[in-house]
Parts: sequence; C-alpha cells; structure tokens
Amino acid sequence: MMTTKRSLRAVLTAGKIGSAAGAHNALTARLVEQAGYDVVWASGLEISASMAVPDANILTMTDVLAVAASMAAKVEIPVLADCDSGFGGTANVVAMVKAYEAAGIQGVCIEDKTFPKLNSFVAGNQSLVPIEDFCSKIAAAVESRGSDDFIVIARIEAFIAGFGLDEALIRARAYEAAGADALLIHSKRGDALEIQAFLQTYDGQLPIVVVPTTYKDTALQELEAMGASLAIFANQGLRGAITATLNTLRTILRTGSAAAVDDSIAPLRDVFELQDMAEHVNGEAHYEAIGRDIAVALEARQPQIG
Amino acid sequence: MMTTKRSLRAVLTAGKIGSAAGAHNALTARLVEQAGYDVVWASGLEISASMAVPDANILTMTDVLAVAASMAAKVEIPVLADCDSGFGGTANVVAMVKAYEAAGIQGVCIEDKTFPKLNSFVAGNQSLVPIEDFCSKIAAAVESRGSDDFIVIARIEAFIAGFGLDEALIRARAYEAAGADALLIHSKRGDALEIQAFLQTYDGQLPIVVVPTTYKDTALQELEAMGASLAIFANQGLRGAITATLNTLRTILRTGSAAAVDDSIAPLRDVFELQDMAEHVNGEAHYEAIGRDIAVALEARQPQIG
Amino acid sequence: MMTTKRSLRAVLTAGKIGSAAGAHNALTARLVEQAGYDVVWASGLEISASMAVPDANILTMTDVLAVAASMAAKVEIPVLADCDSGFGGTANVVAMVKAYEAAGIQGVCIEDKTFPKLNSFVAGNQSLVPIEDFCSKIAAAVESRGSDDFIVIARIEAFIAGFGLDEALIRARAYEAAGADALLIHSKRGDALEIQAFLQTYDGQLPIVVVPTTYKDTALQELEAMGASLAIFANQGLRGAITATLNTLRTILRTGSAAAVDDSIAPLRDVFELQDMAEHVNGEAHYEAIGRDIAVALEARQPQIG
Amino acid sequence: MMTTKRSLRAVLTAGKIGSAAGAHNALTARLVEQAGYDVVWASGLEISASMAVPDANILTMTDVLAVAASMAAKVEIPVLADCDSGFGGTANVVAMVKAYEAAGIQGVCIEDKTFPKLNSFVAGNQSLVPIEDFCSKIAAAVESRGSDDFIVIARIEAFIAGFGLDEALIRARAYEAAGADALLIHSKRGDALEIQAFLQTYDGQLPIVVVPTTYKDTALQELEAMGASLAIFANQGLRGAITATLNTLRTILRTGSAAAVDDSIAPLRDVFELQDMAEHVNGEAHYEAIGRDIAVALEARQPQIG
Repeated sequence: MMTTKRSLRAVLTAGKIGSAAGAHNALTARLVEQAGYDVVWASGLEISASMAVPDANILTMTDVLAVAASMAAKVEIPVLADCDSGFGGTANVVAMVKAYEAAGIQGVCIEDKTFPKLNSFVAGNQSLVPIEDFCSKIAAAVESRGSDDFIVIARIEAFIAGFGLDEALIRARAYEAAGADALLIHSKRGDALEIQAFLQTYDGQLPIVVVPTTYKDTALQELEAMGASLAIFANQGLRGAITATLNTLRTILRTGSAAAVDDSIAPLRDVFELQDMAEHVNGEAHYEAIGRDIAVALEARQPQIG
Repeated sequence: MMTTKRSLRAVLTAGKIGSAAGAHNALTARLVEQAGYDVVWASGLEISASMAVPDANILTMTDVLAVAASMAAKVEIPVLADCDSGFGGTANVVAMVKAYEAAGIQGVCIEDKTFPKLNSFVAGNQSLVPIEDFCSKIAAAVESRGSDDFIVIARIEAFIAGFGLDEALIRARAYEAAGADALLIHSKRGDALEIQAFLQTYDGQLPIVVVPTTYKDTALQELEAMGASLAIFANQGLRGAITATLNTLRTILRTGSAAAVDDSIAPLRDVFELQDMAEHVNGEAHYEAIGRDIAVALEARQPQIG
Repeated sequence: MMTTKRSLRAVLTAGKIGSAAGAHNALTARLVEQAGYDVVWASGLEISASMAVPDANILTMTDVLAVAASMAAKVEIPVLADCDSGFGGTANVVAMVKAYEAAGIQGVCIEDKTFPKLNSFVAGNQSLVPIEDFCSKIAAAVESRGSDDFIVIARIEAFIAGFGLDEALIRARAYEAAGADALLIHSKRGDALEIQAFLQTYDGQLPIVVVPTTYKDTALQELEAMGASLAIFANQGLRGAITATLNTLRTILRTGSAAAVDDSIAPLRDVFELQDMAEHVNGEAHYEAIGRDIAVALEARQPQIG
Repeated sequence: MMTTKRSLRAVLTAGKIGSAAGAHNALTARLVEQAGYDVVWASGLEISASMAVPDANILTMTDVLAVAASMAAKVEIPVLADCDSGFGGTANVVAMVKAYEAAGIQGVCIEDKTFPKLNSFVAGNQSLVPIEDFCSKIAAAVESRGSDDFIVIARIEAFIAGFGLDEALIRARAYEAAGADALLIHSKRGDALEIQAFLQTYDGQLPIVVVPTTYKDTALQELEAMGASLAIFANQGLRGAITATLNTLRTILRTGSAAAVDDSIAPLRDVFELQDMAEHVNGEAHYEAIGRDIAVALEARQPQIG
C-alpha cells in the first residue's frame, strides 16, 4: 500500500467540509485523486454496477475487499470503504475490520439495515435492524481494529426506511455510545430538509457525513454551513463514464472509425500514465543495468545451459 | 454463463466484417453489447489500466480470467479474450484454454512475444519468440480445447517488432499450419499500409483480425474491402470513460454540487437497469410468494426458535 | 471441468446406499475419488478449518466456491457442495446456483438455519428460519438451475435445533413441495435413533442423505437398511490429516531429520502423480516437437530479435 | 495479520540452526507453529499439490500469494514464501515484493531458474537464467521492499541443473553482491556432499538455508555443524497427510463406519480449536451484550419495521 499523506480522521475533523467521490477500481480511484478530492469512496453501488450485479450483497466481502484493496495500493489519499451492513453478524464485522485494515484501507462505513441489504434508492426491503444489534456491530468493529487511525462510520438509514427525525437521533446517540468515529446520515429526498434537520438537532460530538445524490442542488458550501464534515459524491463519476462509453462506442460504429471520437477520448499516453508505464519501463532498464554491472564486476559469465 | 446467440466463429466467417470493442469489466461488456457490437474484446490494456498497473503481465492469468469470466456471464454476444503471450509456456497455454473455455469465454488471442510482454504501443522490449515456440503454443491451445467452437487466434507482432512483410507472412503460414482459427495482424503505423500489404499478399485460408488503434482514419468499410474479417476497437471506450469521469468529478468539485453534471451523466435508473435491479426485486417477491403459498397449503407454521 | 462418469442423481437413486467423503481442496478430492467413494463432499467444516477460520460463514461464497470449483476440475466423480444456509437471501441462492452449476459442480446442499450459520456440533445459535422462508430458497435454487442434472438438497436442522420428529417431518414435506431433489436429515446424537425414526416415518418420495459423524458406530449397511440413499463421511479425512501432519512434523523436530518419518509419508512420486506431473512433462515435449516440425517443414527460421 | 513474536532475520542470524516446515494453507501453517518450528515455509510444491496441479508455475502469483497471506494472518511465527523464479521479469518481482510485504509475509525466496519453472526433483527443463538476469531480480526485490525486515533469499539451483561447486560459488558471490539477505543452496543428492562442499568453501557473509529432502539422513545437528542457518523440511507434512487421509478414507469404506478410524483422527474439538471456534462464540456473546447494554442505557427500543 502507498503512504497516505493525510489521514481520514484529519479530513473528518478539519473544521471545514471534506470531499469524497465514488470509485469502482484502482483507475477511477486515481481519477478521484487527480480531480482533487480528499477521500476515495469505495462505493458499493459503483462496484456492484461495474460487475453488472444488483447492489444487494450479491458480491461478497471477498469481492468488494479486493477492489478496495487495489485502490488503497494505488492512491495516496485515504480510501473509505462502503461495507453495506457489515456482511453478516458481529463475527463477520470483526473479520471485515481486520481484513480491511490489513489491506491499507483507512476506514469502513456500515449501515443499520439487514443482510442482505438493498440499495437505498430502490423500492423494496429497507428494514432497519434493532438498535442494539447495530450497536453490537459498531462495538465489534471498534474493538477489532489494530489502530485508532482506522475509522468506523455508522450509517443511519432511518430516513430511507421511512422513519422520522426522532428515530434518526435515537440511533445517532446509540451509535455514538457504541464507539462510532463518525455518523453518515442518508436521505433520498430531492431537497436537503431531512439532512438539515438532523444536523441542526444532533447534539453529539461526532463528525457527520452526507451523500448529496438526490438533493444534488445543495452545494458543498451549504452542506458545510449546515455542519457536515464530509460530502460523498458517491456515483456520479461512474454515471459520467457510462454515458461517455456508450456515446463513444456508438459513434465509432455509426461512423465506422475511431477518428470521430478522437477529440473526446483520453490519448493513449494518458492511459499509460495512469498505469505507471514509464516507471515500469525505466525500472526494467534500471534493474537490467544493475545485474549487468554485477556480472561484469565479478566477471561472472553465463554458463552452458544445464 | 448466458446463452450466446451467435458464435464467434460465425462472426469471423460471416463474409462481411464484424466489429468488436474493448471492455474491462462486466458493465462495459454490457455497454459494448448495447452499442451494437458483435463481440466483446476482453482487452489486456483496458483491464490492466482499470487496475492501474502496466500492461505488461503484472496482472496474472487468475486476475484477467476473473474479469473475462464475469463478462461472459453477463452478455449474450461472444467474449474474445486478449491473453497476451499465453501467460508462460505451453503448459500454461493448456491450463489457460481449459480455464477460459470452462468459463464460457468463446475464444482467446495469443501473441508471438515473450513473457512477460509489453504493450505494443510502448517503446521497449517487443522481442518475438522463435516461430517454432509459438507454433507449439498454438498447437497446445488447439489440442486442449473441448470443442471446436472455442476459437484460437494467433496474433502476429512482426510489424510491431520492426520486421517487414516477409516475416509477417512466414509467421502467418506457420501459425496456420499449427492450427490457428484466425490471425490477428497488428500494426502501430498511423496509416493502414502494413495491414493492407499483409491482407493483399496473405494467401492462406484464415480470417484476419485487425486493430485500428493508430490507423484510426481507416474505416470499417475500407478494412472490409481490404479483406479483414473482424475489427477490434480495443480501448476507445475506456478512454472515453477516463475523460468523462475526470470532467464530471472536476466539475462537481468546482461548482460544489452534482447539479452541474446532471445532464451529462446517466440517471440512476440506467445504472440500476445495467445491474438487473428490477429482476432482482421481482425475483425476491416471486420466491417469497412461493414459500408463503407452500407454507399455507401445508399449514406449516414457524416453530418456536430452538 | 472433467467429464463425470456418473451423475449425482444416479448415485442418489441407485437403490443402494452411496458414499461421500469430505474434502477441502482438489488434492483431497482426488484422494476421496482414489479411495473409492461415489461423491466428493465439498465440506464447509473442512474448508473453513483448512483456512483456520470458524465454520460460521466467515468465508464467503466466493471463497468456498473457488475451492469446490477446483475440485470439480480435477475429479471424475460428482462434487456435492455444502452451501450452508445459502449465503443470504433468495437472490444470493439464485446467484449461487448459477455460479456453482457453471463451475461444473453437480449439486448443492442448503440448510434451514439463519445466515450466518454456526457449525451444527457447536453450542450456540442454531436457530431455524421459518419454513416458508426456506421453501423460498429451495424454489429459488430449483428455478435457477440450467439443467435438472444439477441437484438441490435441502438439509433439515430440526434435530440440531432441539426440535423433535414432528418438526422434522413438517419441514421434510414442505421442502419436498418446494422442489428439493433430496433431503439431508442431520443429527448430533451419539446413536442413530433420530435418523432411524425419521427414515421410518418419512412417507415422501425423496432420497434421504445422512451424515454419521456422531453416530459413527452405525455402519453403511445399517443406514442402507434404514432407507438412507447417501452417507457422507464429512470430515474424517481432514481429521486424519491433522493428526498425521502433527505427528510427522513433531517426529522430524524431535529426531532432527526426516528419515524417521520416511515410512509413514507418501513418497514424492505419489505427490507428483497426484499433480499430473508426468502428463505435464510429456505435454511440454509433445508440443515442443509439434512446433519444431512445423518450423522445419516450412523452413521458417527464427528472425533476428527486433 | 498477527503480530510476529520473532523476526525471520532473527531466526537466520541466531547463531544456531533454525527450523522451517512446509505448509499449504493456514491450517497446516498453524500445525507447523504448534509442532514447534521457527518458520512456516509457504511451499510451492505443497501448495500446487494441494490444488492438484503440477509444481511448474501453473498456479499464478495471485493464487499462491492468497495462500501465503492466509497463513501470515493466522500464525505468530514468520512466514517465508517460496516464490519460484519470481513469476516473470524484474517488474513482476517488484510487484511481488510489494504484495507479499503488504500481506504480512516476512520474506520471499526466489530461484535462478527460468519462468515457468519445474520442480527441482523432476527430470525436465532445469535451465538456469544468466547470472546477470538473476542479479537484476535480486536487486529489484531488495530495492522494492518497504522495510529491511522483509527478507530476500536467493536460491541457487546450480547443483540441480547439473553444474558443479564452481558455478554454485560464482552465483553465491554474485547474488550476495546484488543484495540478497541469505542464500538457499539446493541439492537432489541422496547425501549431503554437495551441501557440505558448498558450506565449507563459501566465504561470504550470508546465512545459508538448506532443504534436506533427498539427503534426509543428515540431521539438523549435522547441518548446523556444517554451517547452515536454517533447514527447511519442505513437504513431509503434506506427504504424511496424504498417506493418513487415504488410509482413513479407505478404512471407513472397508469397514462401513468411521468408528474404525476414531483413534487415529483428531477429535472434532481439536478441529474447532484450530479454527478459533471458542473465540468466535465468545465474541458473538460479548458484542451482543454490549449492544444490549447500550440500548438499555439509552432506553432505545427497536422501532416498527419501516
């Protein structure tokens, strides 16, 4: 894993709002970094979509951990992993935290829905688990980490499940008592009213994370003014890629050649740069020279093949 | 794996040029299918780029097979896998063919460069292996498949390695003798002269595959007129995605909200559709009803928890 | 995957009792085959133990499927996979059946406990799911398979959970109505009384599978006389390996050399045979000769390196 | 990963001979630890045999790394990984070292044979790579590690390839110059004469590792007296397991019941202990209590399901 310049905790406690963006592989994680975000969000929706399966725990922890780990190995900003409802019970959460932390991921976010979960924007089973059960999971996560630098975020789905502010606040208090490092309050409204109400009435100490997917007109500055510590733009990058890929492919087929898309696609050299190709080629030459120098110095010659 | 409507062999022998486009995960494979291409190209460059590692066999066969298999499970058009130089020696090729065929992939393409290989558009080691060694690999591939429907394409890198038409033709003849189902002739020229010369002078029986990445002004119809059977647009989809993702993410950060990109990104419902979300939700309801009906019919009630 | 000589359905309906033994990797699957068993049981206990994690769904479907798939690729007898409670809800069961069938596994066994499950011989949460929920899963499995040759076994944990014969029979009837191909009735008693009572009173049409781990004195012939169709010796192979490995390693360390264990360990040539090493070496020579012959015939010589 | 009590470097430089034993999964790694060895050897032969494929780089780095990583997560003694010839060229070695070190493995051993390699005890291609090429790989490994605690061992196959002492010593000197932390000198003789000659004449500074597979009568004490720093008993554990598993399975089938093997197989409770089952069950209870206490303290009650 790479050395991270700035910790996820530092982003959450900076006193100004931080920004995260969704990614679904190491390449898009690098694009998030290149675009200037503070944090990579290893998004469950993006990752499941990239594999063309429903965002409903069809992918296993093994699958999504592999993706998040590959991100952490390739960016310097912190990676925060969307871990749905924790992949099972408390023992799964314990195994999860150990595995994610060992992979160099800086934090996990778990939500108070059942396993398997369903994407929050889809009509269907959005049942919450009992508060005590989710507190158990938070405690399991917090007690299992090796270092306090590993962040555990508790995601409150009360609004998604049709409950009101009271339920959200009760859960906020309980999850804070269970040891969460931050809370994520989720809403599927077209405006920020639920989020605003929560931020105004929550009287605990934890940083609050928000995901302005449906209330997209509410800008970072407004979310900051409301008191949010981190805003996650969870899936727009992938959605831009889907549109562009389809347009690119259709234009090529319609015109019969790639010339027509040349101005709207990254040149090959940008792809190579995102792959560290120059470092690769230089590394090979560098090590080849070292080997040759040693052989020459020792007058060691290649023997006949045995 | 899904049932494929049309075989890769049928595409190669259709008498008119077929089209393939590169993909790097199941989602982009679906976009290739949706855009109307005949074949998904499980591109080594796209897959390695998506994981932010050089296109130089840093990813293992395990890694790239997993991606190609995930594509084959999610599209109905055939998947043709870019298998670089075959991941090692003849025994690796045998293991490769068995694994790819079992995974529902319809064909593999191997090239006559050394292992590890380097992307053909990068200056560096582009050495060819001896003809006899590559014929061994082709024979190993062909003899190891379970069905003749599984296609083995031999990719000739003579032009890439700096050789002329003679070398390309000698290799074409040898690879045909070794049992290849088709030949891929590669070129990094800005025009199609090498490709055209090869297609004009090749006097064998095999379908010829071309990859108009650098000679992008040469359209499908021209390539067809020259005698090519399949054109692969190998990486434009990903390159379009890179540009769009970066633009999307930067615009959000600059404006502070996702509203500014809303018109240029796919709506969430498109993402859900690409994930088969409706099928998922309906399936759950369908099976729930079946279970309930059986319980009711048998008057089977849930017991006290044991 | 290899061609299987005899189907799992044929074993279950042979009119005489069949035998299965547990395995945890392709090697032990081969040993099960070599020892003369009819079926390989891809055991959840063996596989989790081999990775030193609790038998409690800490390993994901991705993890255990990879193991079962590697078995199916290396034996000719059918592989039956222990799939715990189905890795989640009905959508997980659908994904499971598609993936297991595609991997050449001949059948799955799912049990009527919650997810995550706990090994049946461990004191702890052994709660059953409601009958209707498990019927939903069976229906999901049966409707999702591509071929009727793929077997779905419903495992009844009523006795394990502390219920009596009535509950076991109610569940048997419901699971049969939901479409199961066979039932597995589990017991942790030291004698076969529960199993015998079930076999005597069950009046449905399905083959019954038993697992004589704790009632180990009841022999195959007796189980056959009671009416069982398949007996699974689920974990004895691994347990024998644990004892032998520990003894071998300790003796070497105590005596300071491997000479003292030489008579009780398989010779290296047996290991090589289990790895198909001769086939490997012969294959390489075979393909090398083919390549050379083609090159000679075409007078194709290796070019200068490009 | 677990905290390792004693470093691999400390074992290699202890002034007395250390002991390592082969393992092929986390369970057998734990048995190596339990039996009292200093080091787990993540053996290429054991791992490939466990998957029933030839020990000839048919398994990829992805496959064998996953196994070695699973060991490192479950034992406190250091894990040393058999990395064959380094999985390709210098760039593969760089990727390898980063991945193995990140996974908590304490060291790698690479050998001076071609890729793909063949097991050293099998007649076939045992060609050595040129000295300068292998020095390049050693340098690549050493320069890529994050910490000097990560050990790079250079394995000399000169004797295996049919060369004499001179070649072995030339290579020893070159690999030492390239930065190796230790040398492994391999021999397939039935006696220790080659090993002894090497140890007597080698005048460098590096610890020497030996693998007394064929010269099994030479005990640890003798190898220590010759000057070896670590002896690896590379595959005897697996070979004992193969014999025992086959005997166990055959006896059950012959007698019709598992009763006949009961005295020679580990009891289930030992299996559970190797899986940390008690820790699992206690953990669940522990976290359940915490959750309940928080809910009670806050008088937070479970809401109606949303």
